[in-house]
Amino acid sequence: MKAFMDQDFLLQTDVAKKLFHEYAESMPVLDYHCHINPKEIAEDRQFENITQVWLGGDHYKWRFMRSCGVDEKYITGDASDKEKFLKWAECLGKAVGNPLYHWSHLELQRYFDYHGALSAKTAEEVWEICNKKLAEPSMSVRNIIRQSNVKLICTTDDPIDSLEWHKKIKEDASFEVVVLPAWRPDKAMNLEKPDYSDYVKKLAEVSGVTIRAFSDLKTALVKRMDYFAENGCVVSDHALEYVMFEPATNDELEAIFRKALIKDRITRKEEMQFKTAFMTFVAGEYTKRNWVMQLHYGCKRDNNTPMFNKLGPDTGYDCINNYAPSSQTADFLNNLIINDSLPKTILYSLNPNDNQAIGTILGCFQNSDAVAKIQQGSAWWFNDHKVGMQDQMTSLANLGNLSGFVGMLTDSRSFLSYTRHEYFRRILCNLLGNWVDNGEFPEDYDILGEIVKDISFNNAVRYFKFGIKEY
Amino acid sequence: MKAFMDQDFLLQTDVAKKLFHEYAESMPVLDYHCHINPKEIAEDRQFENITQVWLGGDHYKWRFMRSCGVDEKYITGDASDKEKFLKWAECLGKAVGNPLYHWSHLELQRYFDYHGALSAKTAEEVWEICNKKLAEPSMSVRNIIRQSNVKLICTTDDPIDSLEWHKKIKEDASFEVVVLPAWRPDKAMNLEKPDYSDYVKKLAEVSGVTIRAFSDLKTALVKRMDYFAENGCVVSDHALEYVMFEPATNDELEAIFRKALIKDRITRKEEMQFKTAFMTFVAGEYTKRNWVMQLHYGCKRDNNTPMFNKLGPDTGYDCINNYAPSSQTADFLNNLIINDSLPKTILYSLNPNDNQAIGTILGCFQNSDAVAKIQQGSAWWFNDHKVGMQDQMTSLANLGNLSGFVGMLTDSRSFLSYTRHEYFRRILCNLLGNWVDNGEFPEDYDILGEIVKDISFNNAVRYFKFGIKEY
Amino acid sequence: MKAFMDQDFLLQTDVAKKLFHEYAESMPVLDYHCHINPKEIAEDRQFENITQVWLGGDHYKWRFMRSCGVDEKYITGDASDKEKFLKWAECLGKAVGNPLYHWSHLELQRYFDYHGALSAKTAEEVWEICNKKLAEPSMSVRNIIRQSNVKLICTTDDPIDSLEWHKKIKEDASFEVVVLPAWRPDKAMNLEKPDYSDYVKKLAEVSGVTIRAFSDLKTALVKRMDYFAENGCVVSDHALEYVMFEPATNDELEAIFRKALIKDRITRKEEMQFKTAFMTFVAGEYTKRNWVMQLHYGCKRDNNTPMFNKLGPDTGYDCINNYAPSSQTADFLNNLIINDSLPKTILYSLNPNDNQAIGTILGCFQNSDAVAKIQQGSAWWFNDHKVGMQDQMTSLANLGNLSGFVGMLTDSRSFLSYTRHEYFRRILCNLLGNWVDNGEFPEDYDILGEIVKDISFNNAVRYFKFGIKEY
Repeated sequence: MKAFMDQDFLLQTDVAKKLFHEYAESMPVLDYHCHINPKEIAEDRQFENITQVWLGGDHYKWRFMRSCGVDEKYITGDASDKEKFLKWAECLGKAVGNPLYHWSHLELQRYFDYHGALSAKTAEEVWEICNKKLAEPSMSVRNIIRQSNVKLICTTDDPIDSLEWHKKIKEDASFEVVVLPAWRPDKAMNLEKPDYSDYVKKLAEVSGVTIRAFSDLKTALVKRMDYFAENGCVVSDHALEYVMFEPATNDELEAIFRKALIKDRITRKEEMQFKTAFMTFVAGEYTKRNWVMQLHYGCKRDNNTPMFNKLGPDTGYDCINNYAPSSQTADFLNNLIINDSLPKTILYSLNPNDNQAIGTILGCFQNSDAVAKIQQGSAWWFNDHKVGMQDQMTSLANLGNLSGFVGMLTDSRSFLSYTRHEYFRRILCNLLGNWVDNGEFPEDYDILGEIVKDISFNNAVRYFKFGIKEY
Repeated sequence: MKAFMDQDFLLQTDVAKKLFHEYAESMPVLDYHCHINPKEIAEDRQFENITQVWLGGDHYKWRFMRSCGVDEKYITGDASDKEKFLKWAECLGKAVGNPLYHWSHLELQRYFDYHGALSAKTAEEVWEICNKKLAEPSMSVRNIIRQSNVKLICTTDDPIDSLEWHKKIKEDASFEVVVLPAWRPDKAMNLEKPDYSDYVKKLAEVSGVTIRAFSDLKTALVKRMDYFAENGCVVSDHALEYVMFEPATNDELEAIFRKALIKDRITRKEEMQFKTAFMTFVAGEYTKRNWVMQLHYGCKRDNNTPMFNKLGPDTGYDCINNYAPSSQTADFLNNLIINDSLPKTILYSLNPNDNQAIGTILGCFQNSDAVAKIQQGSAWWFNDHKVGMQDQMTSLANLGNLSGFVGMLTDSRSFLSYTRHEYFRRILCNLLGNWVDNGEFPEDYDILGEIVKDISFNNAVRYFKFGIKEY
Repeated sequence: MKAFMDQDFLLQTDVAKKLFHEYAESMPVLDYHCHINPKEIAEDRQFENITQVWLGGDHYKWRFMRSCGVDEKYITGDASDKEKFLKWAECLGKAVGNPLYHWSHLELQRYFDYHGALSAKTAEEVWEICNKKLAEPSMSVRNIIRQSNVKLICTTDDPIDSLEWHKKIKEDASFEVVVLPAWRPDKAMNLEKPDYSDYVKKLAEVSGVTIRAFSDLKTALVKRMDYFAENGCVVSDHALEYVMFEPATNDELEAIFRKALIKDRITRKEEMQFKTAFMTFVAGEYTKRNWVMQLHYGCKRDNNTPMFNKLGPDTGYDCINNYAPSSQTADFLNNLIINDSLPKTILYSLNPNDNQAIGTILGCFQNSDAVAKIQQGSAWWFNDHKVGMQDQMTSLANLGNLSGFVGMLTDSRSFLSYTRHEYFRRILCNLLGNWVDNGEFPEDYDILGEIVKDISFNNAVRYFKFGIKEY
């Protein structure tokens, strides 16, 4: 029996242990996709207590507490921070098989040097330990990033963002970690939303382009892309219901856009036509700039209207949308390649059933522009656990080139979540180790060690062309 | 190598063995969903031979025999009971990897003290052993239930059922096991069926309500729900093609219902509109009564018309229907919560690919009304095997709160099937044991033991509010 | 730790080793579905170098090279055979987790007696070894087939094929392996293709039937089926987008067919109506002849138009199509059984998510016409790896009768791919061995050994009624 989450956590074979400890463990972290607030880096925020860090905005934890029957008062309500923590500890203590258990304990071990198990029994003790530690200068946001061995971070930013905090961080010579913006223009695409025309107005203002037509919108977006590029952006991100392909003529598209501007009703078909055109346009621009296009899909958001009205979006009320026709995804990418405008692309579905369809789509669009030019993204959100990662990497390996995989990202709002890169690497090394241990691949550390280092860090450096050093 | 189905069957680690033998094994059984005939309990039926028990109505076994190329004569035809048993034994002997193999051998072990392997070679011997045993008073229906340590059973009953047998069982002080009705109003909803209006007439008669409108139907159903409640019912069950959401106005619904009453053609859209309204209505009533709503979906029934014409429904001709848009399921539940009428709900899909979508839907509707108020039902029907149960519990744990799971049900027509609770518990304990053995959760029996006991029995007592004692 | 791909490759238990080495290993090969060119058998082709054999037409390998960022020049371009091989070796060396790794090394071991690992490091050495060996007479096509212990091969043939090479092989007494045609009438069904009417003209010519109506098409097909039957054909094959059921009247069908003949636009619905009728017709003919109907579905082909224009079909640009409504599949088969025209049928989906839906559909249509009359086909194409095979067999066993499974086929264009039967058998034996080792099935070699031999070879002999000897 293995000890509880010790140094060989998740490493079941000697090969896995060697791969992790000799190749993966010391590799730095490149977090090319997250949702942290650059202001908190610029201002080097210090947290007051562990509830602020853990339960301030983490909807994964909120959901779990609700599943345990905890009253909302102790989740997003007016209970004290300590009360909230105690409730959380009680829930976590029983969270067997849930990734929150591993994420939380990796954070307790790496950042707080606590190696016990958090539960109702140990809650008081852990509360004290964490808060004492959080008061130390070593636990400022910048120092957490440093001690996590992070070399580069991409945040997630709206086209209208001023990027002022990114600039401040860049100008501050005392902070050596690269913090880049990533381009996320969802609001410019989602014309079915009630506040779409308001957003367009803001975009017009920020870009200095009067927007009366879809063509104007494109001009405005190009200006903002240029601005993002000037600030180091090399990657975009899109949240799509699914990767759709519903072609339309220019006239149709302009008519749809005009309807949206005057808040006229848009049909479902028109929505999909406009989004197809929008995505086709930006993909072309990304291709010109050699940006990476990240497509996240398979999510249905804000499913609990009363709670949405109370708490807003991203509060733990999203689920998998299992409608994602692979034929449209293939047709969309094909249409791009026909027009010589298919950028480097990463496909992430929230539905793990899509693993194999994605894996086979990748193979249809690969070429020598890049190693694994079309990628399947790391196990995302609800799949961000041992089973999800194993399944994603196994499927990717079965169907394509695992060795070219750009690997893990945190997708997180928390500064303690860099340990998820460790979690991922342990699972990767264990997977490889099991294959070697079972005689399925030679015990050749020249090859295996390089694959581990590449997936941990170097592939991302090369793929995104971040211009930082490989390790 | 483990011995064949010994006391440590399916228990691969010491932790699993301890959890099963010290916590799970002695817990009583609460079978909150089955299809046994209460008349047979009331009359304390005694079976004549093992063919009656095993092959009298078990379409799982029939299907398997047909897959082996056995002539229908030996399945539902006029062969003798012994001939049928011999054919069955021959088929079972080769049923490697099929849950029927485990179910049958657990029953042979627990009820007949036979620990060999049934096959063509041993068929004669087993035939004798079983039939001799079945002649004993200890093998009457009530005594089987008693020796299975069952504390409570919910049958499945139509709104027009008189519940006479439930009453008789309740009045009989000599039988200490609680037998409650469960409310299954499918026939009142399925207006696309040719005999719908005939059913409505019967319901009108039984309820004493003249039914000319959908509103009358509701009145009649409320009366019957009250009657069921008086007889101890606290749980409903619905067989749905999928959990649909197709809203309509009251006028539209009344028009659809009128068409159904005069056997006019109903469109597919109208069918879905009516069913949405029907389910919305009953969900509100369940909420008022604090009943649990079970939604079973993903099944396409009676796919072999010639055999349906010969044998009727539930004879082994059903399959998975893989159309189940998670977006509609989420919209349906959201609409209920908007109207404050979302009861405790258990979602079961026949399609194991729905595990993750369901797991993420649960999380959108949890609150402090109950621990794990919205549940994913136990691996159901075609998934009722080691792989299916492991996958369902792993997914549930990854995405939500496994510790709040209400656990196993037999869903069975057979009085010998209580051993499936044992099967389930072994798989549960093994899953937990593997996690602990792999260092993924602490070896803390206070927590693990409670989780095992809760999922085995206590969670169901609390969740359904059956008012019986916890163990 | 197991040694790299030694004699016990993939065999994790003593039971598995015994089953493989004592029962599976010496069984001959029956390859009832492949795409090899019978001309090359007739002419007993000899290959010049390993690039010709491996990279001449193998789109699996091409895809993998593209995923590694290799320039098309070294894949299908004008690089020398040796340059291509060196690039391939470099890619393969990192192909951890990909079935190409195992397939290639099994071929190196069995046909070239090379037991090292191919990579950039060993590429030169392997190039020499393979080419030297390929020059020997023992490596002619016929001798490869012989040393692979193949007893019977079914190729894949269009209704207009003259079958001249099959006849030549049959007439040649010096070659003892049976080589039969298989009937693949896709081109006669796919009326949405631009060259459909041209194909119909060719079919008219070959069959001697003037084709002006769908009824004429049927007459022509019957004539060709008779011709195929005369040449030993007992099995058909169909590539379907999905197994559809869209009924139509005869008049509608004739109108659709007339439109197709004059290259008028066919709607999507008309396409599905015609294909339903086409499949219904041929299924009836297969039933009369006791032919097996193979239905392959879930594939979207030729997704990269620029590369399709350059290289044509079957060059590595296909993906999974995840739209395959199980309800239509069930309705299609039901309609056949209603009309007493359901032949022996094998269902293969490219989407592994369909495993369970298929497994439950089988069970609805089994009867005593044959053991496992309706089969789930072996893990196909993108699923043709350890995980895919394990999942397919586990699902089949969970839901039906694994012991009646007709087992493996190569589906290959290569004469070296018979080792995939070995790969499959190792996975089968390991699966069974694990079950026995875990106490889930008795260690009874009478039963297990027979199951292994049946799935390896004998079931196919019986099911297809090839009239060759069992082993």
